[in-house]
Amino acid sequence: MSEAAQLIEQIGKRARAASRKVAWLDGEVKDNALRAMADVLLAKRVHLQNENAKDLEAGRANGLTSAMLDRLTLSDKVIEGMAEGIRQIAALPDPIGEITGVKRRPNGIRVGHMRVPLGVIGIIYESRPNVTADAAALAVKSGNAVILRGGSEAIHSNRAIAACLAEGLAMAGAPADAVQVVETTDRAAVGALLRADKYVDIIIPRGGKSLIQRVMEDATIPVIKHLDGVCHAYVDEHADLHMAEEIICNGKMQRTGVCNALETILIHQDVATTFLPAMAKRLHTGGCALRVCPRSAEAIGEAAPTQPATEADWEAEYLDAILAVRVVDSMDDAMDHIDQYGSRHTEVIITKDYAASQRFLRQVDAAAVMVNASSRFNDGFQFGLGAEMGISTDKLHVRGPVGLEGLTCQKWIVLGDGQVRS
Amino acid sequence: MSEAAQLIEQIGKRARAASRKVAWLDGEVKDNALRAMADVLLAKRVHLQNENAKDLEAGRANGLTSAMLDRLTLSDKVIEGMAEGIRQIAALPDPIGEITGVKRRPNGIRVGHMRVPLGVIGIIYESRPNVTADAAALAVKSGNAVILRGGSEAIHSNRAIAACLAEGLAMAGAPADAVQVVETTDRAAVGALLRADKYVDIIIPRGGKSLIQRVMEDATIPVIKHLDGVCHAYVDEHADLHMAEEIICNGKMQRTGVCNALETILIHQDVATTFLPAMAKRLHTGGCALRVCPRSAEAIGEAAPTQPATEADWEAEYLDAILAVRVVDSMDDAMDHIDQYGSRHTEVIITKDYAASQRFLRQVDAAAVMVNASSRFNDGFQFGLGAEMGISTDKLHVRGPVGLEGLTCQKWIVLGDGQVRS
Repeated sequence: MSEAAQLIEQIGKRARAASRKVAWLDGEVKDNALRAMADVLLAKRVHLQNENAKDLEAGRANGLTSAMLDRLTLSDKVIEGMAEGIRQIAALPDPIGEITGVKRRPNGIRVGHMRVPLGVIGIIYESRPNVTADAAALAVKSGNAVILRGGSEAIHSNRAIAACLAEGLAMAGAPADAVQVVETTDRAAVGALLRADKYVDIIIPRGGKSLIQRVMEDATIPVIKHLDGVCHAYVDEHADLHMAEEIICNGKMQRTGVCNALETILIHQDVATTFLPAMAKRLHTGGCALRVCPRSAEAIGEAAPTQPATEADWEAEYLDAILAVRVVDSMDDAMDHIDQYGSRHTEVIITKDYAASQRFLRQVDAAAVMVNASSRFNDGFQFGLGAEMGISTDKLHVRGPVGLEGLTCQKWIVLGDGQVRS
Repeated sequence: MSEAAQLIEQIGKRARAASRKVAWLDGEVKDNALRAMADVLLAKRVHLQNENAKDLEAGRANGLTSAMLDRLTLSDKVIEGMAEGIRQIAALPDPIGEITGVKRRPNGIRVGHMRVPLGVIGIIYESRPNVTADAAALAVKSGNAVILRGGSEAIHSNRAIAACLAEGLAMAGAPADAVQVVETTDRAAVGALLRADKYVDIIIPRGGKSLIQRVMEDATIPVIKHLDGVCHAYVDEHADLHMAEEIICNGKMQRTGVCNALETILIHQDVATTFLPAMAKRLHTGGCALRVCPRSAEAIGEAAPTQPATEADWEAEYLDAILAVRVVDSMDDAMDHIDQYGSRHTEVIITKDYAASQRFLRQVDAAAVMVNASSRFNDGFQFGLGAEMGISTDKLHVRGPVGLEGLTCQKWIVLGDGQVRS
């Protein structure tokens, strides 16, 4: 067994043992532990920043961009933000132990569900060290143990943050091993973690597409992930066109580098010439480039510069101020386009027509389907989950923002009085 | 691309197209289709039995055992049973389209969940051809398309059954491609199906352990499965010992070859000498062999013949009239044993003590945890699901019996009035 595999096995065994303890801590103990974790982070600010300085120095030596160094920096504000984030998670209701749907069967046994933790969660993430605190807090609140593997460029910072979190856990009488960081930059450790199915129940990768693809390929453990966010807005023939303009501008331009931003808009042919010129002009003025189908080009005319869209544009997740535009014959054509090119993340219809709204809601397959609202709302805070561990475009277990409940499962419980099967 | 892969791609494309149609059929259309499927099966009884005779003849030539030939036979009773099973599934409530948990957010958007089909389900199963009808009916009722790959020894039977089912679908105006059988005995087709992640959303293997292990190893698609059923009953110090005896006899002996049968019993030390002699004698008289720990042997004494248990006995799924018996110091020791050796399938406590019952219910991790009831109740019909596609000992998505709801997922829906994110 390689050194990395041995390390992961040790960490995994400790996590598994801790998970059995943290699973049934009283909510009060978990919340005290979370608040202690926040307190220790604030108390050790200087130490955290000293450790962070080592990562920043190595990062500069290794030629990280200033944006990357920025994300890596544990400023006072970032540390205060981590502590505040943990306190907010402590204030959420405890999801564990909820019993639902108990029904009495003809023979008198009562059968229902109890919500329980998943067990051990492995998180693999990239440069932002504040994910360490955030992910650990969500895992502990939902009764899980967590193994964190951050980017090697943040190793000192992550290690120092995890030590603070473990100290907070121990102060509250919770098992310190419920939060562990993989303390090596050996890349083989990631591979070992992805195959540690004896100890780890689920892997959540947080980061760019190449990270997520590697995790998908190598993991023998179930993965909660999203790979692409190719999100569409469809402007129906009966849309409020002013509303459509606002929703599209917001969806594309409010923040371009995020997975719930719009990448393509689909316009019903009957409103193309009314809608597209002003829309295109506004997007262009806002700095957005347009990749358009022939009919869109014709409708837009001289209102804004455009480039012809190619097949690759319909599949593109630009993560940038670029928007693909296509005119469609009907809502069915729009839904076919979405089915073919969408990534099942977030899909929006703008319409005043009741029947169209209901049919789009029902028939479009995505983690979130919206009527007359911005795609940017597909987010744990916006949906009222309080916080999110990530977002899922898979169909199994959890779709969309993964909040506390997404880190749990339900087991069956049976309450009998001696019944046997005849 | 191999011939098998090409075939799977063709089937997969048709299934994907059909799944979009069947997903939003009215419940009435689906139920009419199911009843038509049942009618056609009954009407084509002679044809089914002629095709079945080909499989039986080949089976005899290939030396199948009489038990295997028996499972393969489409008797009148089996055909009537298939039709009746489909009618029962038609009578269940439609799970699709249910909207739950809609909450108004501060900005006025309403956010909730809608229950939707998974899409395309691949079922890989062994010799019993009646699974073809059963699995197809559950898939259609839950709005999914299904690709069925049965054992090669049942190829003529499965093909004939599937043709009846497709005819029934078409009669009701439902897409016939929603039910397809992989019409080849080429084993490469299984491998191709397990990797057809472009077309298939989930794989459900039904059969013995070697089949399930192969599926787990080769699938790139999520799998719903159970591998082992190492189920325990723990007799607490405060158990009703008569009740314990009934529950253990039922759990072990009512049917021995099933996954929810008991394999090990754990007895609190304080009741071992009172409980074990009579229990052991009764099990022995019933034809059950006992593999016991030293303290159990001492407690049982001359009441019944026993063999010493080895480490392998604690891990064994006997699927036979054999029971492992261990005396434990405490409930915590029993729970440690279950954690170490159990397969997270079904775990039972027999106790009159309220606190012990609640702690066992909470702390034991399994698909089903029971108080004072037989492990044999972990079953879709017994739990009130109406029918089951299989059973899951995984933690994600669905645990325990997989009924109609286990073949669905929930997407987020957002109902707005033009809200954008600020």
